[in-house]
Amino acid sequence: MEEAWYLEEAPAPDEEIITLARARQDNLTKPKGSLGRLEDVAIQLAGNQGTLNPKIERPAIVVFAGDHGVAAEGISAYPQSVTSEMVRNFSAGGAAITVLAKTLNVPFRVFNMGTVDSLEELPNVEDRRVAAGTQNICNSPAMDERQFEECMAAGKEAIDTAGDIDLFIGGEMGIGNSTIAAAMAVAHTKLAAQAMVGRGTGINDQGLAKKAAVVTRALSKHIPHMRAGADYLRRIGGFEVNALAAAYIRAAQRGIAVMVDGYICTAAAMAAVKVNPSIRPWLFFSHCSAEPGHEKLLVKLEAKPLLSLEMRLGEGSGAALALPILQAACALHRDMASFDEAGVSRGG
Amino acid sequence: MEEAWYLEEAPAPDEEIITLARARQDNLTKPKGSLGRLEDVAIQLAGNQGTLNPKIERPAIVVFAGDHGVAAEGISAYPQSVTSEMVRNFSAGGAAITVLAKTLNVPFRVFNMGTVDSLEELPNVEDRRVAAGTQNICNSPAMDERQFEECMAAGKEAIDTAGDIDLFIGGEMGIGNSTIAAAMAVAHTKLAAQAMVGRGTGINDQGLAKKAAVVTRALSKHIPHMRAGADYLRRIGGFEVNALAAAYIRAAQRGIAVMVDGYICTAAAMAAVKVNPSIRPWLFFSHCSAEPGHEKLLVKLEAKPLLSLEMRLGEGSGAALALPILQAACALHRDMASFDEAGVSRGG
Repeated sequence: MEEAWYLEEAPAPDEEIITLARARQDNLTKPKGSLGRLEDVAIQLAGNQGTLNPKIERPAIVVFAGDHGVAAEGISAYPQSVTSEMVRNFSAGGAAITVLAKTLNVPFRVFNMGTVDSLEELPNVEDRRVAAGTQNICNSPAMDERQFEECMAAGKEAIDTAGDIDLFIGGEMGIGNSTIAAAMAVAHTKLAAQAMVGRGTGINDQGLAKKAAVVTRALSKHIPHMRAGADYLRRIGGFEVNALAAAYIRAAQRGIAVMVDGYICTAAAMAAVKVNPSIRPWLFFSHCSAEPGHEKLLVKLEAKPLLSLEMRLGEGSGAALALPILQAACALHRDMASFDEAGVSRGG
Repeated sequence: MEEAWYLEEAPAPDEEIITLARARQDNLTKPKGSLGRLEDVAIQLAGNQGTLNPKIERPAIVVFAGDHGVAAEGISAYPQSVTSEMVRNFSAGGAAITVLAKTLNVPFRVFNMGTVDSLEELPNVEDRRVAAGTQNICNSPAMDERQFEECMAAGKEAIDTAGDIDLFIGGEMGIGNSTIAAAMAVAHTKLAAQAMVGRGTGINDQGLAKKAAVVTRALSKHIPHMRAGADYLRRIGGFEVNALAAAYIRAAQRGIAVMVDGYICTAAAMAAVKVNPSIRPWLFFSHCSAEPGHEKLLVKLEAKPLLSLEMRLGEGSGAALALPILQAACALHRDMASFDEAGVSRGG
């Protein structure tokens, strides 16, 4: 049997370039280390791109949308119809991520992976509906094998049809998907469900307790059957979450850096790394969201995000906001003068 | 006697607009509060600008440079000549802030307020040298009354000659000025000098202990004589720090929002607020630096910065990086659709 495409290794960072890039940073006209996290990301990107002049000039945003059977458990403050309503809002340009895409001048597409409601043809929206929402993970796997492979193929397609890009920003929309993210986060970290659920779009204390109970119940059903990374995605993932994980893997395989958004995207990234550990160096983490489980998931991934703006919106919005920061880090790395070039004395 | 220009009140924010802007945020197609800090700054700016459509379209950066007599105490890792060498580097475009100004397409000028070395005429550098560095605050006030007024006038001039701007980003360069900032921070917060000194450009543990002792020694001399806000600036400030404080005041008086940079800029901002409390609503805080005293100073000012990137470079670099975040916050506030406009269902 042929190996699945998503198991193929991503190119490894160039360690020699990383050493040279670190030396370059230490020679620029600033106190050593004084650009903080900007130095780290510029050096990481230099290693990935195999050049001392890393740059991000052709980013692209794709938001994956999908509904979740687990919404039947009453774990969201919003009705399930909001997923498809928001797809329309994305198409019309009225959502946060579309405003950011326009402001930052980044191409934007939506992949509808499986809203409960079917949608008319919409500009910038690709119809890839696998089904009218996943199954409720409290009762069964989120999807079957065929549906899982459809999600993975759609994520691959999102990258393969994006043109000659150098940064992939993924986003998600799906009522119920912060419950899915929490289930995935608990499965990966083994932390208590209570620590990994948050208010999502805005549930109250009672809703929060119910959400934790739903996660625990679902995991008791699936944990005994989850071994490979793909099992996590198929059993407790979602159509949009799995397509996102696939897109992360495909981007890394093609040498495209990835900017990971908030809790749901980070859960997808963690699953993607479990499926294919070689992609980890290609992931950049944009922000730490207000969802309490996110920080713990970032720690587990040894990921240090760039921003912490108390955001909890999803859609890829935090990742889009980190784009100018990453671009500035590249410009500083590339264009600052060295001590010798500028005739500036060194510290003692 | 005529009242000094820097005591004149800045326009007060429009409280009615603030209420309407908060209502607008709550009506946009996102979970309530999910844009976190971006909502706060958009609403603050709406109140300042007196419009529901706040925007930042014409920012300007001015870096003030100056030397400090306290450098004689050996509190910096770099020789004093670096201040003027860096002014040349700013002019030539090789410094961090100039790379950021170019990347973000923001006009940039330097005001040389008093480097030890005199400098040739340089593009984008205004020569406003008050003296060849301040006096050593361990022995005497940093400057006399005439010099203080010259600094204030230069800060005012920087704003009055900047054209029709809507955001002022100030920066500073001055070997020894993190000691000056620490002295000002201790004077304002009454916290221990040990808690408020940091490694600046990179001193070792011994240097750090010396820096704290220098701050304590200087303050024992000046504290009994400091009452008005202006006393703080004249006695323990610096030429560039005082011009910066004056620029902050002038910007606010003219209805121009201010993006405050790191530790030294925040110390200048705190002194400016002490001189003229009416300017406080005009200040936006860009980042929390790696200098340990900075966070404590921000707390004292009840300021929540946008970024935390472990930077400690100064020059206005953190403030410049926050510019696209503030602009994105405005775009989201202005251009996102409401629930009604987009036909999206509300949460329960």
